[in-house]
Amino acid sequence: MERRKFLTMGGAMAGGVALTTLLANGNIQGRSIETIDEAMKLTPPKTGKIPVAVLISHKATVIDFAGPWEVFQDAWTPDESGGFEPFTVAETLDPITASAGLKILPNYTFANAPLPKVVMMGAQAGRSPATFEWLKRVSETADVVMSVCTGAFILAKSGLIDGRSATTHHDFYDKFEKEFPKVKLKRDLRFVEEKKFSSAGGLTSGIDMALRIVDRYYGRKAAEKTAFYMEYRSRDWAV
Amino acid sequence: MERRKFLTMGGAMAGGVALTTLLANGNIQGRSIETIDEAMKLTPPKTGKIPVAVLISHKATVIDFAGPWEVFQDAWTPDESGGFEPFTVAETLDPITASAGLKILPNYTFANAPLPKVVMMGAQAGRSPATFEWLKRVSETADVVMSVCTGAFILAKSGLIDGRSATTHHDFYDKFEKEFPKVKLKRDLRFVEEKKFSSAGGLTSGIDMALRIVDRYYGRKAAEKTAFYMEYRSRDWAV
Repeated sequence: MERRKFLTMGGAMAGGVALTTLLANGNIQGRSIETIDEAMKLTPPKTGKIPVAVLISHKATVIDFAGPWEVFQDAWTPDESGGFEPFTVAETLDPITASAGLKILPNYTFANAPLPKVVMMGAQAGRSPATFEWLKRVSETADVVMSVCTGAFILAKSGLIDGRSATTHHDFYDKFEKEFPKVKLKRDLRFVEEKKFSSAGGLTSGIDMALRIVDRYYGRKAAEKTAFYMEYRSRDWAV
Repeated sequence: MERRKFLTMGGAMAGGVALTTLLANGNIQGRSIETIDEAMKLTPPKTGKIPVAVLISHKATVIDFAGPWEVFQDAWTPDESGGFEPFTVAETLDPITASAGLKILPNYTFANAPLPKVVMMGAQAGRSPATFEWLKRVSETADVVMSVCTGAFILAKSGLIDGRSATTHHDFYDKFEKEFPKVKLKRDLRFVEEKKFSSAGGLTSGIDMALRIVDRYYGRKAAEKTAFYMEYRSRDWAV
Protein backbone atom coordinates (compact mmCIF):
# COMPACT_ATOMS: atom_id res chain seq x y z
CA MET A 1 0.00 0.00 0.00
CA GLU A 2 1.23 3.45 -0.82
CA ARG A 3 2.28 5.53 2.12
CA ARG A 4 -0.75 7.45 3.28
CA LYS A 5 -0.74 11.07 2.25
CA PHE A 6 -3.65 12.47 4.17
CA LEU A 7 -5.97 11.56 6.94
CA THR A 8 -9.73 11.86 7.09
CA MET A 9 -11.38 11.82 10.47
CA GLY A 10 -15.07 11.59 10.72
CA GLY A 11 -17.45 10.67 8.01
CA ALA A 12 -20.74 9.38 9.38
CA MET A 13 -19.75 9.98 12.98
CA ALA A 14 -18.22 13.40 12.53
CA GLY A 15 -19.05 15.57 15.47
CA GLY A 16 -19.31 12.61 17.78
CA VAL A 17 -16.78 11.84 20.45
CA ALA A 18 -15.59 8.59 18.91
CA LEU A 19 -14.35 9.49 15.46
CA THR A 20 -14.08 6.81 12.84
CA THR A 21 -10.74 6.98 11.12
CA LEU A 22 -10.97 6.63 7.39
CA LEU A 23 -7.68 6.51 5.57
CA ALA A 24 -8.67 7.81 2.21
CA ASN A 25 -5.74 6.40 0.31
CA GLY A 26 -6.43 2.77 -0.19
CA ASN A 27 -8.01 -0.31 1.11
CA ILE A 28 -9.19 0.25 4.64
CA GLN A 29 -11.46 -2.25 6.32
CA GLY A 30 -11.75 -4.12 3.06
CA ARG A 31 -12.91 -1.22 0.99
CA SER A 32 -11.07 0.72 -1.65
CA ILE A 33 -11.80 4.41 -1.43
CA GLU A 34 -11.49 5.89 -4.87
CA THR A 35 -14.04 8.58 -4.48
CA ILE A 36 -14.90 10.79 -1.57
CA ASP A 37 -16.61 9.11 1.34
CA GLU A 38 -20.31 10.02 1.19
CA ALA A 39 -20.22 11.70 4.57
CA MET A 40 -17.38 13.97 3.46
CA LYS A 41 -19.15 15.25 0.35
CA LEU A 42 -20.06 18.90 0.25
CA THR A 43 -22.97 20.39 -1.64
CA PRO A 44 -22.37 23.35 -3.93
CA PRO A 45 -25.01 26.09 -3.99
CA LYS A 46 -27.78 25.71 -6.59
CA THR A 47 -26.72 28.97 -8.21
CA GLY A 48 -23.73 31.25 -7.93
CA LYS A 49 -20.24 30.66 -6.72
CA ILE A 50 -18.93 29.34 -3.43
CA PRO A 51 -17.54 32.27 -1.44
CA VAL A 52 -14.04 31.55 -0.13
CA ALA A 53 -12.73 33.92 2.56
CA VAL A 54 -8.94 34.05 2.69
CA LEU A 55 -7.79 35.51 6.00
CA ILE A 56 -4.68 37.68 5.67
CA SER A 57 -2.58 39.81 7.99
CA HIS A 58 1.02 40.94 8.17
CA LYS A 59 3.67 38.40 7.24
CA ALA A 60 1.11 36.22 5.47
CA THR A 61 3.17 33.51 3.77
CA VAL A 62 2.58 33.96 0.06
CA ILE A 63 2.24 30.38 -1.20
CA ASP A 64 -0.05 29.46 1.74
CA PHE A 65 -2.85 31.64 0.41
CA ALA A 66 -1.76 31.85 -3.24
CA GLY A 67 -1.77 28.08 -3.78
CA PRO A 68 -5.38 27.48 -2.66
CA TRP A 69 -6.38 30.82 -4.24
CA GLU A 70 -5.25 29.55 -7.62
CA VAL A 71 -6.98 26.19 -7.17
CA PHE A 72 -10.25 27.89 -6.31
CA GLN A 73 -10.09 30.39 -9.16
CA ASP A 74 -9.20 27.66 -11.68
CA ALA A 75 -11.60 25.01 -10.39
CA TRP A 76 -13.34 23.19 -13.20
CA THR A 77 -16.96 22.41 -12.42
CA PRO A 78 -19.30 19.99 -14.17
CA ASP A 79 -21.44 22.63 -15.91
CA GLU A 80 -18.47 25.01 -16.24
CA SER A 81 -20.36 27.57 -14.19
CA GLY A 82 -20.39 27.89 -10.45
CA GLY A 83 -17.08 27.18 -8.87
CA PHE A 84 -15.43 29.30 -6.23
CA GLU A 85 -15.00 33.00 -5.59
CA PRO A 86 -11.96 33.71 -3.41
CA PHE A 87 -11.49 37.06 -1.65
CA THR A 88 -9.09 38.36 0.97
CA VAL A 89 -10.35 39.42 4.39
CA ALA A 90 -8.43 41.39 7.00
CA GLU A 91 -9.11 43.48 10.06
CA THR A 92 -8.86 46.73 8.08
CA LEU A 93 -8.38 47.68 4.44
CA ASP A 94 -4.84 48.92 5.14
CA PRO A 95 -2.14 47.40 2.92
CA ILE A 96 -0.65 44.20 4.25
CA THR A 97 2.99 43.27 3.86
CA ALA A 98 3.04 39.57 3.15
CA SER A 99 6.16 37.39 3.19
CA ALA A 100 9.28 38.79 1.51
CA GLY A 101 7.54 42.13 1.13
CA LEU A 102 4.63 41.36 -1.23
CA LYS A 103 2.10 44.15 -0.60
CA ILE A 104 -1.58 43.28 -0.65
CA LEU A 105 -4.71 45.39 -0.39
CA PRO A 106 -7.42 43.33 1.34
CA ASN A 107 -10.71 42.98 -0.53
CA TYR A 108 -12.84 43.10 2.62
CA THR A 109 -12.76 43.66 6.36
CA PHE A 110 -14.25 41.39 9.03
CA ALA A 111 -17.16 43.87 9.10
CA ASN A 112 -18.14 43.80 5.44
CA ALA A 113 -16.90 40.49 4.01
CA PRO A 114 -19.52 38.22 2.40
CA LEU A 115 -20.43 35.24 4.54
CA PRO A 116 -18.08 32.48 3.34
CA LYS A 117 -18.77 28.79 2.78
CA VAL A 118 -15.03 28.10 2.78
CA VAL A 119 -12.60 29.82 5.17
CA MET A 120 -8.86 29.60 4.58
CA MET A 121 -5.96 30.78 6.73
CA GLY A 122 -2.26 30.39 5.98
CA ALA A 123 0.73 31.34 8.14
CA GLN A 124 0.58 34.97 9.24
CA ALA A 125 1.16 37.24 12.22
CA GLY A 126 -2.42 38.30 13.02
CA ARG A 127 -3.75 37.13 16.40
CA SER A 128 -6.13 39.95 17.31
CA PRO A 129 -9.32 39.29 19.30
CA ALA A 130 -11.27 40.55 16.26
CA THR A 131 -9.69 37.77 14.17
CA PHE A 132 -10.94 35.06 16.52
CA GLU A 133 -14.36 36.64 16.85
CA TRP A 134 -14.72 36.69 13.06
CA LEU A 135 -13.37 33.16 12.74
CA LYS A 136 -15.81 31.75 15.28
CA ARG A 137 -18.70 33.65 13.74
CA VAL A 138 -18.11 32.55 10.13
CA SER A 139 -17.27 28.99 11.15
CA GLU A 140 -20.83 28.48 12.30
CA THR A 141 -22.24 28.61 8.77
CA ALA A 142 -19.14 27.61 6.75
CA ASP A 143 -18.85 24.20 5.11
CA VAL A 144 -15.09 24.04 5.59
CA VAL A 145 -12.60 25.98 7.69
CA MET A 146 -9.04 25.22 6.76
CA SER A 147 -5.50 26.14 7.69
CA VAL A 148 -2.25 25.87 5.76
CA CYS A 149 1.18 25.66 7.40
CA THR A 150 1.33 27.47 10.75
CA GLY A 151 -2.11 28.89 10.04
CA ALA A 152 -2.99 25.83 12.15
CA PHE A 153 -1.83 27.80 15.20
CA ILE A 154 -4.57 30.37 14.55
CA LEU A 155 -7.17 27.68 13.97
CA ALA A 156 -6.11 25.91 17.18
CA LYS A 157 -5.98 29.13 19.20
CA SER A 158 -9.60 29.82 18.22
CA GLY A 159 -10.58 26.74 20.24
CA LEU A 160 -12.60 25.46 17.29
CA ILE A 161 -10.58 22.26 16.93
CA ASP A 162 -10.18 21.28 20.59
CA GLY A 163 -10.44 17.50 20.75
CA ARG A 164 -9.91 17.23 16.99
CA SER A 165 -6.96 16.21 14.82
CA ALA A 166 -4.80 18.62 12.86
CA THR A 167 -1.40 19.05 11.24
CA THR A 168 1.00 21.91 10.49
CA HIS A 169 4.42 22.62 8.94
CA HIS A 170 6.94 19.90 9.82
CA ASP A 171 9.27 22.33 11.60
CA PHE A 172 6.48 23.24 14.04
CA TYR A 173 5.12 19.86 15.17
CA ASP A 174 6.67 20.00 18.64
CA LYS A 175 5.78 23.64 19.25
CA PHE A 176 2.20 22.97 18.17
CA GLU A 177 1.84 19.93 20.41
CA LYS A 178 3.16 21.84 23.39
CA GLU A 179 1.00 24.89 22.75
CA PHE A 180 -2.22 23.03 21.98
CA PRO A 181 -2.43 19.87 24.08
CA LYS A 182 -6.17 19.66 23.38
CA VAL A 183 -5.57 19.22 19.64
CA LYS A 184 -4.34 15.85 18.35
CA LEU A 185 -1.34 16.65 16.18
CA LYS A 186 -0.81 14.30 13.26
CA ARG A 187 2.64 14.17 11.69
CA ASP A 188 3.94 13.53 8.18
CA LEU A 189 0.68 13.99 6.35
CA ARG A 190 -0.18 16.24 3.46
CA PHE A 191 -3.33 17.28 5.31
CA VAL A 192 -5.75 16.15 7.96
CA GLU A 193 -9.47 16.68 7.69
CA GLU A 194 -12.55 16.31 9.74
CA LYS A 195 -16.01 17.08 8.45
CA LYS A 196 -15.70 20.85 8.81
CA PHE A 197 -12.08 21.48 9.74
CA SER A 198 -9.07 20.76 7.56
CA SER A 199 -5.42 21.54 8.15
CA ALA A 200 -2.59 21.18 5.66
CA GLY A 201 1.10 20.71 6.31
CA GLY A 202 3.56 23.33 5.15
CA LEU A 203 3.35 25.71 2.23
CA THR A 204 2.66 23.79 -0.99
CA SER A 205 0.53 21.19 0.80
CA GLY A 206 -2.28 23.76 0.78
CA ILE A 207 -2.61 23.18 -2.96
CA ASP A 208 -3.42 19.52 -2.36
CA MET A 209 -5.90 20.35 0.37
CA ALA A 210 -7.68 22.84 -1.90
CA LEU A 211 -7.89 20.24 -4.69
CA ARG A 212 -9.45 17.92 -2.16
CA ILE A 213 -12.08 20.60 -1.42
CA VAL A 214 -12.85 20.82 -5.16
CA ASP A 215 -13.24 17.02 -5.09
CA ARG A 216 -15.56 17.17 -2.08
CA TYR A 217 -17.83 19.76 -3.73
CA TYR A 218 -17.67 18.81 -7.41
CA GLY A 219 -16.25 15.30 -7.60
CA ARG A 220 -13.06 13.61 -8.68
CA LYS A 221 -13.30 14.54 -12.35
CA ALA A 222 -13.54 18.24 -11.47
CA ALA A 223 -10.48 18.02 -9.22
CA GLU A 224 -8.54 16.06 -11.84
CA LYS A 225 -9.30 18.61 -14.52
CA THR A 226 -8.33 21.46 -12.21
CA ALA A 227 -5.01 19.83 -11.34
CA PHE A 228 -4.34 19.12 -15.02
CA TYR A 229 -5.09 22.69 -16.02
CA MET A 230 -2.71 23.89 -13.29
CA GLU A 231 -0.08 21.41 -14.53
CA TYR A 232 0.12 20.27 -10.93
CA ARG A 233 2.17 17.14 -10.36
CA SER A 234 1.42 16.02 -6.81
CA ARG A 235 -1.26 13.35 -6.48
CA ASP A 236 -1.26 13.53 -2.71
CA TRP A 237 -4.74 15.06 -2.69
CA ALA A 238 -6.22 12.02 -4.40
CA VAL A 239 -4.45 8.93 -3.11
CA MET B 1 14.68 6.22 -18.79
CA GLU B 2 12.24 8.47 -17.07
CA ARG B 3 10.26 10.72 -19.36
CA ARG B 4 12.14 13.97 -19.66
CA LYS B 5 10.71 16.77 -17.61
CA PHE B 6 12.65 19.73 -18.81
CA LEU B 7 14.97 20.72 -21.59
CA THR B 8 18.26 22.56 -21.38
CA MET B 9 19.58 24.19 -24.50
CA GLY B 10 23.05 25.58 -24.55
CA GLY B 11 25.75 24.97 -22.10
CA ALA B 12 29.19 25.61 -23.53
CA MET B 13 27.84 26.79 -26.83
CA ALA B 14 25.08 29.00 -25.52
CA GLY B 15 24.77 32.08 -27.62
CA GLY B 16 26.08 30.29 -30.68
CA VAL B 17 23.90 29.39 -33.61
CA ALA B 18 24.23 25.64 -33.19
CA LEU B 19 22.93 24.90 -29.72
CA THR B 20 23.98 21.71 -28.01
CA THR B 21 20.98 19.97 -26.58
CA LEU B 22 21.54 18.63 -23.11
CA LEU B 23 18.72 16.64 -21.65
CA ALA B 24 19.29 17.16 -18.00
CA ASN B 25 17.30 14.19 -16.83
CA GLY B 26 19.42 11.16 -17.34
CA ASN B 27 22.05 9.51 -19.33
CA ILE B 28 22.78 11.51 -22.45
CA GLN B 29 25.77 10.74 -24.60
CA GLY B 30 26.98 8.24 -22.05
CA ARG B 31 26.95 10.60 -19.12
CA SER B 32 24.62 10.76 -16.15
CA ILE B 33 23.75 14.31 -15.28
CA GLU B 34 23.06 14.46 -11.59
CA THR B 35 24.24 17.96 -11.03
CA ILE B 36 23.94 21.06 -13.11
CA ASP B 37 26.04 21.17 -16.26
CA GLU B 38 29.04 23.42 -15.59
CA ALA B 39 28.07 25.84 -18.32
CA MET B 40 24.60 26.33 -16.78
CA LYS B 41 25.89 27.22 -13.33
CA LEU B 42 25.25 30.72 -12.08
CA THR B 43 27.45 32.61 -9.65
CA PRO B 44 25.83 34.23 -6.61
CA PRO B 45 27.14 37.64 -5.57
CA LYS B 46 29.99 37.65 -3.02
CA THR B 47 27.81 39.56 -0.56
CA GLY B 48 24.13 40.42 -0.37
CA LYS B 49 21.10 38.85 -1.91
CA ILE B 50 20.24 38.16 -5.52
CA PRO B 51 17.66 40.74 -6.63
CA VAL B 52 14.66 39.10 -8.33
CA ALA B 53 12.35 41.41 -10.26
CA VAL B 54 8.83 40.04 -10.59
CA LEU B 55 6.98 41.82 -13.38
CA ILE B 56 3.29 42.34 -12.61
CA SER B 57 0.37 44.03 -14.31
CA HIS B 58 -3.39 43.62 -14.39
CA LYS B 59 -4.73 40.05 -14.45
CA ALA B 60 -1.39 38.69 -13.24
CA THR B 61 -2.07 35.00 -12.57
CA VAL B 62 -1.48 34.51 -8.86
CA ILE B 63 0.37 31.19 -8.73
CA ASP B 64 2.64 32.20 -11.64
CA PHE B 65 4.39 34.81 -9.54
CA ALA B 66 3.57 33.47 -6.07
CA GLY B 67 5.13 30.04 -6.69
CA PRO B 68 8.58 31.31 -7.71
CA TRP B 69 8.25 34.14 -5.13
CA GLU B 70 7.95 31.56 -2.37
CA VAL B 71 10.86 29.49 -3.70
CA PHE B 72 13.11 32.54 -3.80
CA GLN B 73 12.12 33.77 -0.34
CA ASP B 74 12.58 30.30 1.17
CA ALA B 75 15.76 29.37 -0.68
CA TRP B 76 18.27 27.66 1.57
CA THR B 77 21.83 28.68 0.82
CA PRO B 78 25.08 27.00 1.92
CA ASP B 79 26.06 29.64 4.47
CA GLU B 80 22.42 30.39 5.32
CA SER B 81 22.97 33.98 4.28
CA GLY B 82 22.61 35.41 0.81
CA GLY B 83 19.78 33.91 -1.11
CA PHE B 84 17.25 35.88 -3.10
CA GLU B 85 15.31 39.08 -2.64
CA PRO B 86 12.12 39.15 -4.70
CA PHE B 87 10.22 42.37 -5.38
CA THR B 88 7.34 43.30 -7.66
CA VAL B 89 7.84 45.77 -10.50
CA ALA B 90 5.12 47.47 -12.51
CA GLU B 91 4.70 50.46 -14.77
CA THR B 92 3.28 52.56 -11.92
CA LEU B 93 2.69 52.11 -8.19
CA ASP B 94 -1.08 51.97 -8.72
CA PRO B 95 -2.77 48.89 -7.25
CA ILE B 96 -2.93 45.93 -9.57
CA THR B 97 -5.85 43.55 -9.72
CA ALA B 98 -4.35 40.12 -10.16
CA SER B 99 -6.32 36.98 -11.03
CA ALA B 100 -9.62 36.42 -9.23
CA GLY B 101 -9.36 39.90 -7.75
CA LEU B 102 -6.26 39.70 -5.56
CA LYS B 103 -5.13 43.32 -5.15
CA ILE B 104 -1.39 44.04 -5.11
CA LEU B 105 0.58 47.20 -4.53
CA PRO B 106 3.78 47.04 -6.61
CA ASN B 107 7.06 47.51 -4.72
CA TYR B 108 8.75 49.44 -7.55
CA THR B 109 8.19 50.98 -10.95
CA PHE B 110 10.30 50.44 -14.07
CA ALA B 111 11.94 53.76 -13.21
CA ASN B 112 13.11 53.00 -9.67
CA ALA B 113 13.42 49.19 -9.38
CA PRO B 114 16.82 47.83 -8.36
CA LEU B 115 18.73 46.25 -11.25
CA PRO B 116 17.77 42.55 -11.08
CA LYS B 117 19.95 39.49 -11.61
CA VAL B 118 16.78 37.39 -12.07
CA VAL B 119 13.73 38.61 -13.98
CA MET B 120 10.44 36.73 -13.72
CA MET B 121 7.17 37.22 -15.60
CA GLY B 122 4.00 35.18 -15.26
CA ALA B 123 0.76 35.42 -17.22
CA GLN B 124 -0.64 38.95 -17.18
CA ALA B 125 -2.29 41.57 -19.37
CA GLY B 126 0.49 44.20 -19.59
CA ARG B 127 1.98 44.71 -23.06
CA SER B 128 2.94 48.39 -22.92
CA PRO B 129 5.98 49.71 -24.81
CA ALA B 130 7.46 50.66 -21.41
CA THR B 131 7.27 47.00 -20.37
CA PHE B 132 9.35 45.86 -23.31
CA GLU B 133 11.82 48.72 -22.94
CA TRP B 134 12.39 47.76 -19.29
CA LEU B 135 12.60 44.07 -20.14
CA LYS B 136 15.23 44.61 -22.81
CA ARG B 137 17.18 46.95 -20.58
CA VAL B 138 17.33 44.68 -17.51
CA SER B 139 17.94 41.56 -19.61
CA GLU B 140 21.32 42.90 -20.63
CA THR B 141 22.77 42.53 -17.14
CA ALA B 142 20.49 39.82 -15.72
CA ASP B 143 21.70 36.25 -15.19
CA VAL B 144 18.29 34.75 -15.94
CA VAL B 145 15.11 36.05 -17.53
CA MET B 146 12.22 33.67 -17.11
CA SER B 147 8.56 33.32 -17.94
CA VAL B 148 5.83 31.20 -16.40
CA CYS B 149 2.69 30.13 -18.25
CA THR B 150 1.59 32.63 -20.91
CA GLY B 151 4.21 35.03 -19.57
CA ALA B 152 6.12 33.39 -22.44
CA PHE B 153 4.06 35.53 -24.82
CA ILE B 154 5.57 38.66 -23.27
CA LEU B 155 9.08 37.22 -23.35
CA ALA B 156 8.61 36.21 -27.00
CA LYS B 157 7.05 39.54 -27.97
CA SER B 158 10.14 41.31 -26.59
CA GLY B 159 12.16 39.66 -29.36
CA LEU B 160 14.71 38.48 -26.81
CA ILE B 161 14.17 34.79 -27.57
CA ASP B 162 13.97 34.87 -31.36
CA GLY B 163 15.73 31.78 -32.63
CA ARG B 164 15.61 30.20 -29.19
CA SER B 165 13.46 27.48 -27.61
CA ALA B 166 10.64 28.10 -25.17
CA THR B 167 7.46 26.62 -23.72
CA THR B 168 4.17 27.89 -22.32
CA HIS B 169 0.85 26.66 -20.84
CA HIS B 170 -0.39 23.54 -22.66
CA ASP B 171 -3.62 25.25 -23.78
CA PHE B 172 -1.60 27.88 -25.64
CA TYR B 173 0.93 25.85 -27.63
CA ASP B 174 -0.75 26.39 -31.01
CA LYS B 175 -1.45 30.07 -30.43
CA PHE B 176 2.16 30.61 -29.38
CA GLU B 177 3.57 28.82 -32.40
CA LYS B 178 1.40 30.83 -34.76
CA GLU B 179 2.18 34.14 -33.06
CA PHE B 180 5.92 33.60 -32.69
CA PRO B 181 7.26 31.59 -35.63
CA LYS B 182 10.80 32.70 -34.78
CA VAL B 183 10.66 30.96 -31.38
CA LYS B 184 11.00 27.17 -31.27
CA LEU B 185 8.08 25.99 -29.16
CA LYS B 186 8.73 22.86 -27.09
CA ARG B 187 5.73 20.90 -25.88
CA ASP B 188 5.04 18.76 -22.83
CA LEU B 189 7.94 19.94 -20.73
CA ARG B 190 8.00 21.37 -17.24
CA PHE B 191 10.32 24.10 -18.47
CA VAL B 192 12.84 24.89 -21.18
CA GLU B 193 16.02 26.78 -20.51
CA GLU B 194 18.86 28.31 -22.37
CA LYS B 195 21.78 29.98 -20.70
CA LYS B 196 19.95 33.22 -19.94
CA PHE B 197 16.32 32.57 -20.86
CA SER B 198 14.00 30.08 -19.20
CA SER B 199 10.33 29.45 -19.76
CA ALA B 200 8.04 27.26 -17.69
CA GLY B 201 4.83 25.55 -18.72
CA GLY B 202 1.60 26.46 -16.97
CA LEU B 203 1.01 27.74 -13.46
CA THR B 204 2.63 25.39 -10.92
CA SER B 205 5.51 24.54 -13.28
CA GLY B 206 7.04 27.89 -12.32
CA ILE B 207 7.83 26.40 -8.89
CA ASP B 208 10.00 23.74 -10.51
CA MET B 209 11.75 26.28 -12.69
CA ALA B 210 12.51 28.48 -9.68
CA LEU B 211 13.94 25.47 -7.79
CA ARG B 212 16.14 24.85 -10.80
CA ILE B 213 17.40 28.46 -10.51
CA VAL B 214 18.25 27.83 -6.84
CA ASP B 215 20.14 24.73 -8.01
CA ARG B 216 22.00 26.69 -10.68
CA TYR B 217 23.15 29.35 -8.18
CA TYR B 218 23.61 27.36 -4.98
CA GLY B 219 23.73 23.69 -5.96
CA ARG B 220 21.58 20.61 -5.65
CA LYS B 221 21.66 20.42 -1.86
CA ALA B 222 20.34 23.98 -1.57
CA ALA B 223 17.49 23.24 -3.98
CA GLU B 224 16.68 19.95 -2.20
CA LYS B 225 16.51 21.68 1.17
CA THR B 226 14.34 24.44 -0.24
CA ALA B 227 11.90 21.94 -1.79
CA PHE B 228 11.80 19.96 1.46
CA TYR B 229 11.13 23.05 3.53
CA MET B 230 8.29 23.94 1.14
CA GLU B 231 6.97 20.37 1.41
CA TYR B 232 7.02 20.38 -2.38
CA ARG B 233 6.37 17.02 -4.00
CA SER B 234 7.30 17.42 -7.67
CA ARG B 235 10.80 16.30 -8.60
CA ASP B 236 10.47 17.59 -12.13
CA TRP B 237 13.01 20.32 -11.44
CA ALA B 238 15.71 17.79 -10.63
CA VAL B 239 15.31 14.80 -12.92
